Amino acid sequence: MSYIAMNRFKIRPGRETDFENIWKERESRLNELAGFREFRLLKGPATEEFQLYSSHVIWDSREDFEAWTKSEQFRASHRNAGKREGESPILGHPQFEGFETVLHEA
Amino acid sequence: MSYIAMNRFKIRPGRETDFENIWKERESRLNELAGFREFRLLKGPATEEFQLYSSHVIWDSREDFEAWTKSEQFRASHRNAGKREGESPILGHPQFEGFETVLHEA
Repeated sequence: MSYIAMNRFKIRPGRETDFENIWKERESRLNELAGFREFRLLKGPATEEFQLYSSHVIWDSREDFEAWTKSEQFRASHRNAGKREGESPILGHPQFEGFETVLHEA
Repeated sequence: MSYIAMNRFKIRPGRETDFENIWKERESRLNELAGFREFRLLKGPATEEFQLYSSHVIWDSREDFEAWTKSEQFRASHRNAGKREGESPILGHPQFEGFETVLHEA
């Protein structure tokens, strides 16, 4: 039916633009992978401590997602992670959640 | 860019099929609403205490989502909520989160 790989990110207040720019400026190669359908970066609710964001990648199947995590494109996209100077805009670690589609209406 | 209305549901272990059937058997009228794009019911990770599910509705805008919450279709879809006999498959209350799309690749 399709598989959605999500990561939830807690962003320090005031660092929202920095975080969005990391995504906007990255070279996305997701569309080189079999089974890739859609990517979204989403801005959710905020608390006093953080602004919530979520990244969603829709794949044809969990197997396509797992193949991506073992790909050259995955390694390239994570090569510079953690190498930026200064304090990261991200609080703690992203929280990964994978979801299988049970129902779909469009 | 599009707005995603999500609800997170914690389902009692063993009641997954009951919960999925509530969604499968409901009469969805989302496609009668302006700005409706897609609906998904998603099955996520499980713990010892619960199985996580998430419902996603993609709208053209937050305004379209808010118009739906004031519609006859919304009232009709929630008319029987809480009226089912026996113990609910849902632990506690669903957790709502609304997200604005910042980036979209397809």
